[in-house]
Amino acid sequence: MIIIKLGGSALTVKDASTPTLDEENLDRIASEVSYYNDDMIIVHGAGSYGHIYADEYKIGDVITNANEHLRRIEGVCKTQTSVQQLNHDICQKLQQKGIPAITIKPSSFIVTNQKRIAVCDTTIIKQYLENGFVPVLYGDAVLDMDEDIKFAIISGDQIITYLAYDLKADRVILASDVDGIYTDNPKTNPEAKLIDEVTQDTQLNTTSNENMADVTGGMNGKIQELLKLAENNIQSQIINAQTPGNIQKAVSGQNVKGTIIK
Amino acid sequence: MIIIKLGGSALTVKDASTPTLDEENLDRIASEVSYYNDDMIIVHGAGSYGHIYADEYKIGDVITNANEHLRRIEGVCKTQTSVQQLNHDICQKLQQKGIPAITIKPSSFIVTNQKRIAVCDTTIIKQYLENGFVPVLYGDAVLDMDEDIKFAIISGDQIITYLAYDLKADRVILASDVDGIYTDNPKTNPEAKLIDEVTQDTQLNTTSNENMADVTGGMNGKIQELLKLAENNIQSQIINAQTPGNIQKAVSGQNVKGTIIK
Repeated sequence: MIIIKLGGSALTVKDASTPTLDEENLDRIASEVSYYNDDMIIVHGAGSYGHIYADEYKIGDVITNANEHLRRIEGVCKTQTSVQQLNHDICQKLQQKGIPAITIKPSSFIVTNQKRIAVCDTTIIKQYLENGFVPVLYGDAVLDMDEDIKFAIISGDQIITYLAYDLKADRVILASDVDGIYTDNPKTNPEAKLIDEVTQDTQLNTTSNENMADVTGGMNGKIQELLKLAENNIQSQIINAQTPGNIQKAVSGQNVKGTIIK
Repeated sequence: MIIIKLGGSALTVKDASTPTLDEENLDRIASEVSYYNDDMIIVHGAGSYGHIYADEYKIGDVITNANEHLRRIEGVCKTQTSVQQLNHDICQKLQQKGIPAITIKPSSFIVTNQKRIAVCDTTIIKQYLENGFVPVLYGDAVLDMDEDIKFAIISGDQIITYLAYDLKADRVILASDVDGIYTDNPKTNPEAKLIDEVTQDTQLNTTSNENMADVTGGMNGKIQELLKLAENNIQSQIINAQTPGNIQKAVSGQNVKGTIIK
């Protein structure tokens, strides 16, 4: 079984002031994913559908009074409903490409504790897989056990790490808007080089990699999650979803420009 | 805690050839529901968003070969995605009216056995209620444990009955497109009278009531579910959502034309 993460930045217009789909990218990416015909889970980011509300309503910040609590509830509602719309559009497109995509709504069964997944029964995901479906999950606003914050945003990255362990994934593909992990920030340092392979021992300039972050977790958070997977012998691969053909090659097991974490 | 069922027939254009929202009705109904300010769960039907695909793909019928299985999988995907869109639009409208509506996707945690709910952990629904949210569920296409059918449609009616027991609801309001239960079919028999109160002992002409059915379960199925609730001292009330003011009165505890089942 493979897990593919589709970055919110590749599917949505990231800096849009209202949630906006990148329809052209979505259509192409869904086509490329459809080249894989075996057990697969897809996890997508929230992109502009999530961050706009998550930021506006400060979901995950400490709640200090009843008014803030009410406002946070409103924010959780809006975030969930917004990412549900994005997820709908993605699943519909995947289905049009022949993928039996089925939504597993994270906030309907995941609860975090201090922003880390604490409750997540994957039984039904296994059942959908056994029945030939492709479960689709996504970054979402969830309940948190910590009474101080009560709510949290879980990133698609955290979900893939959890599922990869729990369901013993063979490999993980992260298709985002960067080519992979660089020795330094390629946008500011023309000498920066793409690192083909990262292991526990690789020295990384995490500060500069932070600049290539997507909004939830950032690149450094992503690397830490993937190194934990590597410790459990689950190999992952960061590729650029913006480059046509990359996802198709990666799911087909062909060489792709990117970074392998093992 | 009260549970309100909003019939798919009141929220969607029932006989439409493609899923179509009844926006005017939805707007009014959401306003009326917002008069209730205490613990509440909302369950809505699938209306034209569900039945079109459920019927076309014969979800719930016995699967006799691999091709039928593949086709059923496609149908489950399409049904789930379609009702997810309806649910999105309903939740967004409820939120606009100030209701902290949060979707609990039935197919993400409910599994049936021979079309009856067999797995349904309501822990997270309780947590959302305790946190001040209004959980919203709906008729959906789910996995079924029966190897012969593999998939089933669960009606909103089956969900409300299950939740009403499990979460010890105080009362249940079913707002649909009929005034209540009649002595005979009011569309064909001008002498038919609305029954104010139905109990286990009431003699019902179930055949004629069948004509007033909504598509999942039908009126007779509905009455049987509600009589089971009544046995457990949970009172329910059938009212017509098409009549402006009915839902507002019902949630406010005022007298409404309709049938009480107790």
